[in-house]
Amino acid sequence: MKILLTIEYNGTDFAGWQTQNKKRTVQTELENSLFLIFREKIKVYGSGRTDSGVHAFAQTAHFELSSSSVSKFMILGKLNLNKLIQAINSNIPKDIQVLKAKKVSTGFHARFDVKEKVYIYKMQENTYRPSPLNLNFVGTCRDVLDVDKMKEAAQYLIGEHDFTSFSNSKTTVKDFTRRINYIKIKKQKDDIVCFEISGNGFLYNMVRIIVGTLVDVGISRIKPIDVKTILQNKNRTSAGKTVSSSGLYLKKVRY
Amino acid sequence: MKILLTIEYNGTDFAGWQTQNKKRTVQTELENSLFLIFREKIKVYGSGRTDSGVHAFAQTAHFELSSSSVSKFMILGKLNLNKLIQAINSNIPKDIQVLKAKKVSTGFHARFDVKEKVYIYKMQENTYRPSPLNLNFVGTCRDVLDVDKMKEAAQYLIGEHDFTSFSNSKTTVKDFTRRINYIKIKKQKDDIVCFEISGNGFLYNMVRIIVGTLVDVGISRIKPIDVKTILQNKNRTSAGKTVSSSGLYLKKVRY
Repeated sequence: MKILLTIEYNGTDFAGWQTQNKKRTVQTELENSLFLIFREKIKVYGSGRTDSGVHAFAQTAHFELSSSSVSKFMILGKLNLNKLIQAINSNIPKDIQVLKAKKVSTGFHARFDVKEKVYIYKMQENTYRPSPLNLNFVGTCRDVLDVDKMKEAAQYLIGEHDFTSFSNSKTTVKDFTRRINYIKIKKQKDDIVCFEISGNGFLYNMVRIIVGTLVDVGISRIKPIDVKTILQNKNRTSAGKTVSSSGLYLKKVRY
Repeated sequence: MKILLTIEYNGTDFAGWQTQNKKRTVQTELENSLFLIFREKIKVYGSGRTDSGVHAFAQTAHFELSSSSVSKFMILGKLNLNKLIQAINSNIPKDIQVLKAKKVSTGFHARFDVKEKVYIYKMQENTYRPSPLNLNFVGTCRDVLDVDKMKEAAQYLIGEHDFTSFSNSKTTVKDFTRRINYIKIKKQKDDIVCFEISGNGFLYNMVRIIVGTLVDVGISRIKPIDVKTILQNKNRTSAGKTVSSSGLYLKKVRY
């Protein structure tokens, strides 16, 4: 039986999502938790990796349960997924929490079946360091950001494009075409500018490079129209810097 | 010359405000920072202690500068306090930040001259553990809180009263009379209930015991009118439990 989990985590103390030798990762902690419950090694498949320091309001991941394991959570012939959520949360570290669990079809895959992903980026403007109470939860920018200019620039990224310029050059993917559904930008209280970006999928560091480039527009280092040229250049060096991982949150994965 | 600082800090990794042997405290970090700048031992006097894990949006503290130290920040015959703020912030750990600095009169004392203190308490309701992204920044309560009942109960605490029932019994003070100016309670998004409490001063653990008692009202363990009796009993055991320090923030100190 295949189960899909929705998971919140605080990325501060993780070397990202994916299992890595001797490093603390969200995937490893989840698999450890499942091992404690089922006494069998169960591999968890996430909707995608998140980097070290990146947070998630709602990451998703699936795993397969053997029929003997499923029987542990059968109550009066019905699978009790709330009990499973409780079992995981009672032995997993405090910086991870399972929010939902649901049964999915045998053919389902948490990564390959993604239709939409939404990320949030929180940028504290007008400072050279994050406020202590925002520590590990925002990126920072020394100047005040011009939101209107950034909104204008963002329009050039909407739709299906080759996002080579907005991808870490170390990526191994071949197809750089992705679709951006929308980019919302708004000022919140306490000098926080919030970016919300929805797409059908994202390249390695793509959200952080998009935000870095929009920030260049927001501080008038480049013009909104330059973002069109950057996109056309298909060259990572054209775009802005990769902003800090600490301001990034995976908000939603839709199937 | 006396200088008054306004300081923000993230209390998570501190054993509170006050210097303690071999423990990491905000006061010690500030004094270390001043030593690095002025090469003299300077004692910092806070508006009051905060416990381990308690945060501050705006704690205040004063210190005295010798005339030779003052001369370091004199520019064209004028004291440049922005330079002093920058100097402190450039060598202090990331979980502390000086927000303001101003010159105060010789007789001023950061603790004895306080006219009003305002605290915030953030309580995540309807959960047995904080959300990972609220970790270290909220208290928790298993049930949903009835805000109207808590508001009704809070009215019995407004004004000048003997708050013995709402003080940690280990306190060494003799006078338990304090004045509460107001208590505001409102639900925010994501199951956070926010308490804002203003008073002319607070006894040891007083805010946390008030919130713990109001939570007892909010989950209908006791009635709003019972808070009046608890106050009259002048006995710590009458009141509710001391809620977790992680949800507490010193918001403002007024002189």
